[in-house]
Amino acid sequence: MRKSFVLGCSIALFATFGTAHAQDWTKSKWGPDDQIGAANYMTPEIVLKAAGLIKTGKVYGLGIETNSKTPAFPPRTFKVLVLQPGQAGGSGLGPNKTTYNDDIIEGWVGIGSQLDGLGHIGVDWTYYNGNKSGDFAAADGLKKLGIEKVPPIVTRGVLLDMAGYLGTDVVKEGTAFNVAEIEGAAKKQGVEIRQGDVVIFHTGWVSLIGKDDKRYNAGEPGVGVEGAKYLVGKGVVAVGADTWAVEVIPFESKNVFEVHQILIPMSGTYILENMNTAPLAADKAYEFLFVLGAPKITGAVQSIINPIAIR
Amino acid sequence: MRKSFVLGCSIALFATFGTAHAQDWTKSKWGPDDQIGAANYMTPEIVLKAAGLIKTGKVYGLGIETNSKTPAFPPRTFKVLVLQPGQAGGSGLGPNKTTYNDDIIEGWVGIGSQLDGLGHIGVDWTYYNGNKSGDFAAADGLKKLGIEKVPPIVTRGVLLDMAGYLGTDVVKEGTAFNVAEIEGAAKKQGVEIRQGDVVIFHTGWVSLIGKDDKRYNAGEPGVGVEGAKYLVGKGVVAVGADTWAVEVIPFESKNVFEVHQILIPMSGTYILENMNTAPLAADKAYEFLFVLGAPKITGAVQSIINPIAIR
Amino acid sequence: MRKSFVLGCSIALFATFGTAHAQDWTKSKWGPDDQIGAANYMTPEIVLKAAGLIKTGKVYGLGIETNSKTPAFPPRTFKVLVLQPGQAGGSGLGPNKTTYNDDIIEGWVGIGSQLDGLGHIGVDWTYYNGNKSGDFAAADGLKKLGIEKVPPIVTRGVLLDMAGYLGTDVVKEGTAFNVAEIEGAAKKQGVEIRQGDVVIFHTGWVSLIGKDDKRYNAGEPGVGVEGAKYLVGKGVVAVGADTWAVEVIPFESKNVFEVHQILIPMSGTYILENMNTAPLAADKAYEFLFVLGAPKITGAVQSIINPIAIR
Amino acid sequence: MRKSFVLGCSIALFATFGTAHAQDWTKSKWGPDDQIGAANYMTPEIVLKAAGLIKTGKVYGLGIETNSKTPAFPPRTFKVLVLQPGQAGGSGLGPNKTTYNDDIIEGWVGIGSQLDGLGHIGVDWTYYNGNKSGDFAAADGLKKLGIEKVPPIVTRGVLLDMAGYLGTDVVKEGTAFNVAEIEGAAKKQGVEIRQGDVVIFHTGWVSLIGKDDKRYNAGEPGVGVEGAKYLVGKGVVAVGADTWAVEVIPFESKNVFEVHQILIPMSGTYILENMNTAPLAADKAYEFLFVLGAPKITGAVQSIINPIAIR
Repeated sequence: MRKSFVLGCSIALFATFGTAHAQDWTKSKWGPDDQIGAANYMTPEIVLKAAGLIKTGKVYGLGIETNSKTPAFPPRTFKVLVLQPGQAGGSGLGPNKTTYNDDIIEGWVGIGSQLDGLGHIGVDWTYYNGNKSGDFAAADGLKKLGIEKVPPIVTRGVLLDMAGYLGTDVVKEGTAFNVAEIEGAAKKQGVEIRQGDVVIFHTGWVSLIGKDDKRYNAGEPGVGVEGAKYLVGKGVVAVGADTWAVEVIPFESKNVFEVHQILIPMSGTYILENMNTAPLAADKAYEFLFVLGAPKITGAVQSIINPIAIR
Repeated sequence: MRKSFVLGCSIALFATFGTAHAQDWTKSKWGPDDQIGAANYMTPEIVLKAAGLIKTGKVYGLGIETNSKTPAFPPRTFKVLVLQPGQAGGSGLGPNKTTYNDDIIEGWVGIGSQLDGLGHIGVDWTYYNGNKSGDFAAADGLKKLGIEKVPPIVTRGVLLDMAGYLGTDVVKEGTAFNVAEIEGAAKKQGVEIRQGDVVIFHTGWVSLIGKDDKRYNAGEPGVGVEGAKYLVGKGVVAVGADTWAVEVIPFESKNVFEVHQILIPMSGTYILENMNTAPLAADKAYEFLFVLGAPKITGAVQSIINPIAIR
Repeated sequence: MRKSFVLGCSIALFATFGTAHAQDWTKSKWGPDDQIGAANYMTPEIVLKAAGLIKTGKVYGLGIETNSKTPAFPPRTFKVLVLQPGQAGGSGLGPNKTTYNDDIIEGWVGIGSQLDGLGHIGVDWTYYNGNKSGDFAAADGLKKLGIEKVPPIVTRGVLLDMAGYLGTDVVKEGTAFNVAEIEGAAKKQGVEIRQGDVVIFHTGWVSLIGKDDKRYNAGEPGVGVEGAKYLVGKGVVAVGADTWAVEVIPFESKNVFEVHQILIPMSGTYILENMNTAPLAADKAYEFLFVLGAPKITGAVQSIINPIAIR
Repeated sequence: MRKSFVLGCSIALFATFGTAHAQDWTKSKWGPDDQIGAANYMTPEIVLKAAGLIKTGKVYGLGIETNSKTPAFPPRTFKVLVLQPGQAGGSGLGPNKTTYNDDIIEGWVGIGSQLDGLGHIGVDWTYYNGNKSGDFAAADGLKKLGIEKVPPIVTRGVLLDMAGYLGTDVVKEGTAFNVAEIEGAAKKQGVEIRQGDVVIFHTGWVSLIGKDDKRYNAGEPGVGVEGAKYLVGKGVVAVGADTWAVEVIPFESKNVFEVHQILIPMSGTYILENMNTAPLAADKAYEFLFVLGAPKITGAVQSIINPIAIR
């Protein structure tokens, strides 16, 4: 019953009044030691069933390119450096003359196609499963809830083509996806959302990158507060979109990144940002096997990713 | 016929004499513009067939953890930084008090579980498909052969349990896997290597990490020169192992990283290093659907990865 | 009168009770816009007088080497990277074949010989001149109190040889320098501390680096709370030492880095850490022209420095 | 006599023909182990004499601000990060509530006001005193000629106001300073250049920063080949300017950065770039005590600096 209670409550109240009830979300339904949240929904049965969706052998990389020009939430920056260590003035190692390029990345992980881990967002310094910031958020890496804890995400993926549903190429910023929109699009596509799913919204928004980065960064269509609670109620593992924050911006109220709070600290649901959904939408590929192995960087908060859809 | 010719030639000769024949490898069989090499072997048919290997719904993440303590080829280093930008002294954004952790990575990409891209290794400054270092290896990112070019790798994965084949827990450093060993292990397991496969060797070597990092870094069992040519001849997409370089060290001759040269610049075959193969070996999971979406970091040479095996 | 009041008060009280009186330190004696604190004490007259101390032409660099092995307050790390951008496989630019090395630093500034700027230390998120953390401490650089604001520090330098005064080579950790010790050493040396001075303590502690880094980091002799107030009362511009924190560790009470608070936020006095004082002490060079130009990195909190003493 | 020989030779010839004579510059006049070059010219007598130039007590910081917007030679970038490690959600350390900002720099050192060390520039992979790149230029820091070797530079500084001499505010790009111009300006100012001096040119060029960065980066007035040899012949320690490269650009011939080669590898003379000379020029401060302590970062190639002029 805890879940429905959470859904029926206003987060703003949680934060403001901090009643005993309101603090309920700080205790995970998967136990006091749980660090993976909604990833617990995945089972071998779900994998097997999702594998059955593979019928054409067509493969989609959902990652977009990430580089120093990728629009990012300030002051995030990103950079790659290529070098040829120890080879200056030479012709390579050994008689076979091996030369090599190496690379260094220096960048904020929260850029481009990314997975938000459960240590990313909190409510007044409290994070998923009641973890207090001061207890786990060390400067040299999260001591709990780090990205290395995230198991392989292999499950059914569902694309909701909101651009198609709303009859546009690029859904307007500020357009909220709540129960009516989510159910409307699902019904139109003939798909249902099930426990263990990864649900990804196609809005066309990511097509603005490189064309109108300023507009891209200033707002976006996305999941609303009611919609987020609905998806949590369905038991999804992750919610994604072809936008930089998945949630609707401008926000629906004075609350800031409230959808992030509902999904991450309050229910352990992952967020997938800047997904490359257009090829799926073009193919009307609404169901597929979703496969994501986030690089296991110890203590990282987020992860630059390239999930794969197979159908 | 080019391929068999390449296999019959000594790389040392290529480099030393640079005859017209020897330079043949600088022209890709997939055309002068090709940047993806052996990834061309993958087809929807291969995906479909490999998906048929999914029978239990069990999932394996092949990535190991990567952090500042991960043993690395000097002077490679790696670091994560966690911070709370713009939140000092406050209680979060908005009335809902959103707090958040962000992270920055600063590190050499060639650490931990990694994919070597086709721009990583060359022969005397010449790389895959004849690309000259000075033409594409800019300090701010490869202008060709960057990791963003690597398509999703979704195909049949084959595990060769060399530790099991050789009757040991950890195969000794310097043990070369050449035709006899590869065919012997495959025969024992009852698997065959086919065009389009990803072949991964289990040696137990990665179990040394954290126990004997010095030994881990000083050598390793791995693919020999003959074995590399054999795998290239089979048309594999990638060769991996639970070692830091996949190839046998000490090297079989005075040549240095010659197996890397045979695989990467000379045939466009990818290398997967530091794979976590023990769970596959324990389950005798010798065939599986292999899925890898390398984060599309523009111009990167390598990629920190966590490929997924599903069976 | 404000100054003497500050000196007579307990900081712990300031922080705990936050009375109107206690908050006095949040208003700089140099006005509400002041960002340079005790650097205001310097005048051309002081420079001229200090220049008169130059009598032998002997020069001392007070910086120690900084690199990846320099002991540092966790999790601080430091690294230099040398590369040859755009030169791979070539022999240099133009007919004159110019080759070049470039370098990148990636490191916490608070390592090695360093200047603590006025934005470094605060009391419960309040910094020098009443600046609140949230108002100026942006992730991409301090918007106030940044190191670029620090004017050239050119003034009389005074070395207090505490090791000599206490008859030892390396003063023991936990040894506090308070009024008795400071006046005792000054008297023994025949020097007096004047307004506008930079006062540097020689303890021998820095000689532990590379020999016993663990002990070096675990404690140190240094300025005590009473001593810090005394130096502030004298009107010094900066206080330095051949230790990593200048202040005595273990601390004299349960307060943590209280001397830092007295010097930096409460009085605008700079701190100079890890100074190489041994050559000055060996020469009994107790007075000298002190010259420091901190690199003007916009928004930086601290600065890696190499001040020069000339006598 | 070696010096005059070097001056009479064409570098292009050195590089092209590599005769025994031409290679002479690879042997330092200060011996085979020398790593500091023209810094050897400094003596206590020179310091004493230069200290005598201090007559007003006025102090000048010659560094400009360095940050992410500072125009830089591509692909150089620079960044500061400010964070509050270990303080998330708290109110500081101890009962006295110490809070603190820390900072990390990640950047190419060759940005803003900088000192070019003797390991920066070479001729076909040969550097100062005959050091070969492969022997000292390791990726984790120069093993010789690193910036930590540079002694304090305390000597007579001479400003040559080329803008004043040429009757303009900003000297035009491509204007070469050779013997006629250098001697002309010196004569007009009534100063002579002596062994051990640091000579700094004022051109007004640095005033373009922030106004016309593109023009700033595309060229500059500066020292010509003949002028560089003349200054080396005078025995100066360093040559500086308010430009990003000190040497004239477009270059006088097809040779690229030839003045850098004459000064650094061929004679061990330091270069000081992006100096803030306008205040000195405005005061007609043509002679002064020049003081530079470059932070002793082990193995660094260059150094971000803020030299101090005192008169």
